[in-house]
Amino acid sequence: MAAAVIAPVTGEPRLVDPGRPHVGLEDQALTRGDGVFETMHVLDGRAYKFAAHHARLCTSAGIAGLPAPSAQTCRAALAMALDAAGPGSRDTALDLGAEHSVKLSISRGEPGGEPWAWLTVSPVPEQAFAARRDGVSVLLLDRGHDPAEDAELPWLLPGVKTLSYAVNMAAVRHARAHGAQDAVFTTSTDRRILEGATSSVVCARTRDDAAPTLLTPEPSRGILPGTSQARIFDTARRHGWGVDHGPLYPEDLLTADAVWLTSSVRLAVPVTAVDGHEIPTDPVLTRTLTDFLVGSPRG
Amino acid sequence: MAAAVIAPVTGEPRLVDPGRPHVGLEDQALTRGDGVFETMHVLDGRAYKFAAHHARLCTSAGIAGLPAPSAQTCRAALAMALDAAGPGSRDTALDLGAEHSVKLSISRGEPGGEPWAWLTVSPVPEQAFAARRDGVSVLLLDRGHDPAEDAELPWLLPGVKTLSYAVNMAAVRHARAHGAQDAVFTTSTDRRILEGATSSVVCARTRDDAAPTLLTPEPSRGILPGTSQARIFDTARRHGWGVDHGPLYPEDLLTADAVWLTSSVRLAVPVTAVDGHEIPTDPVLTRTLTDFLVGSPRG
Repeated sequence: MAAAVIAPVTGEPRLVDPGRPHVGLEDQALTRGDGVFETMHVLDGRAYKFAAHHARLCTSAGIAGLPAPSAQTCRAALAMALDAAGPGSRDTALDLGAEHSVKLSISRGEPGGEPWAWLTVSPVPEQAFAARRDGVSVLLLDRGHDPAEDAELPWLLPGVKTLSYAVNMAAVRHARAHGAQDAVFTTSTDRRILEGATSSVVCARTRDDAAPTLLTPEPSRGILPGTSQARIFDTARRHGWGVDHGPLYPEDLLTADAVWLTSSVRLAVPVTAVDGHEIPTDPVLTRTLTDFLVGSPRG
Repeated sequence: MAAAVIAPVTGEPRLVDPGRPHVGLEDQALTRGDGVFETMHVLDGRAYKFAAHHARLCTSAGIAGLPAPSAQTCRAALAMALDAAGPGSRDTALDLGAEHSVKLSISRGEPGGEPWAWLTVSPVPEQAFAARRDGVSVLLLDRGHDPAEDAELPWLLPGVKTLSYAVNMAAVRHARAHGAQDAVFTTSTDRRILEGATSSVVCARTRDDAAPTLLTPEPSRGILPGTSQARIFDTARRHGWGVDHGPLYPEDLLTADAVWLTSSVRLAVPVTAVDGHEIPTDPVLTRTLTDFLVGSPRG
């Protein structure tokens, strides 16, 4: 981590020493995963999809019964941290510029205390550059149930990006322990594709004589609405591409012309294999999707 | 919090100032709820069900791919913290002695760093004493799915007491916002009783001419095996009571002679109402179940 800012619910954000401890042992983000977060991409000092991330943070916080810092406070904290963060890291393959990964989190705080927020800025890790460049093999993992069943049950925090991510992390570890590099969740009943452990799933159908069509699972059915997937689809639509939401099954990934895991920092990561079956990648389309993500810095 | 001890994976536990921050902003317990924990009850300096808690901590850690401190290290840390913790709090109704609540947690640590453990000792909160004394009304909340479906899927961390407790906390908040004091999860399909948000569910059938029978949902079916429920059942069985596991439905709670939420610190909390329907309590049985829990200090 290169820089960190702490923002109390009331009061000004303040730069803190990223190398020092800042959290007490009873903080409920620590003891209960009780908080929400967003991860953003910063390129040459500019935050991408800031408005979409701040909106989703506010939605998450609202459902979880937490206050959220204003966009103004978040932008001030981000500027403060970026000033202190140093040069960022550079993807030698894509050469987009100096890149930072930014995490913005809200904790419920200590019992009886006040919620608080923090923002950290780190150089994008080499592992993310490697994933963009070389792609990842994925394992399809049963989510145990269809999260669409949770959608009307607010106490299950459907669609909330909480700090309670232990299962997402366990899924990635399981995939890595079984020869793959990332995990994609499916429903148990009909093996419908849901989402990556920390990403959205997008696939493409291409034809020589027409614009490509992009497909992704329905974001309303209990999965996290992906800000990168949404940005790619909005831009693709403006370019006259076909974009569609709908049920996707393992065979749709195996027969697609290309599949990606999309997320804010890793951008569009090509999927090279599904459950050990190699699938084609499309470097030109991958570059286009990446440009869709980093072509329009603000908003 | 009255006292705290931090234990690195290698090295000795050390007493730390409970009023100071000890956790960095990138610790994965904080940023991902990526860790496991246990809550224990200490009465007059003696830890109850220590072996059962340590065993469950090790099981949780094992499934989550984390190392766990040895029982010896945990006991040393506990003794160190209790020495520093001060007198504890006293339940004026039960008058059991000086009580402490102890939390033992393991974090995966910072990315690229080492897992670590911590232990905190706090006086039992007045809210717990009030729950024992006055009971709680509960709301039945749909868990969205049957956790039995997760039981064979290790990447979903079934039966692991992870730090990712945001949904459990949201369920309690939802119950409180809707006129009840605690939440009990049910399956969505057949409304089978699962467990409390932070407790097990136990109910009793009594007859004038025979020993009572205690019932609880099957612990193997994806719910957390409760150490308090197990201790109550073991002791009840030795006293010649009937004990049984099996499917319980809302009508079983409504027609039971008494229902409790059992957990380590709150002990046996009488349920006074289910979804707004008052149910009977049995103060004599409540006292007996409490004695089952605190009658045998060690092991």
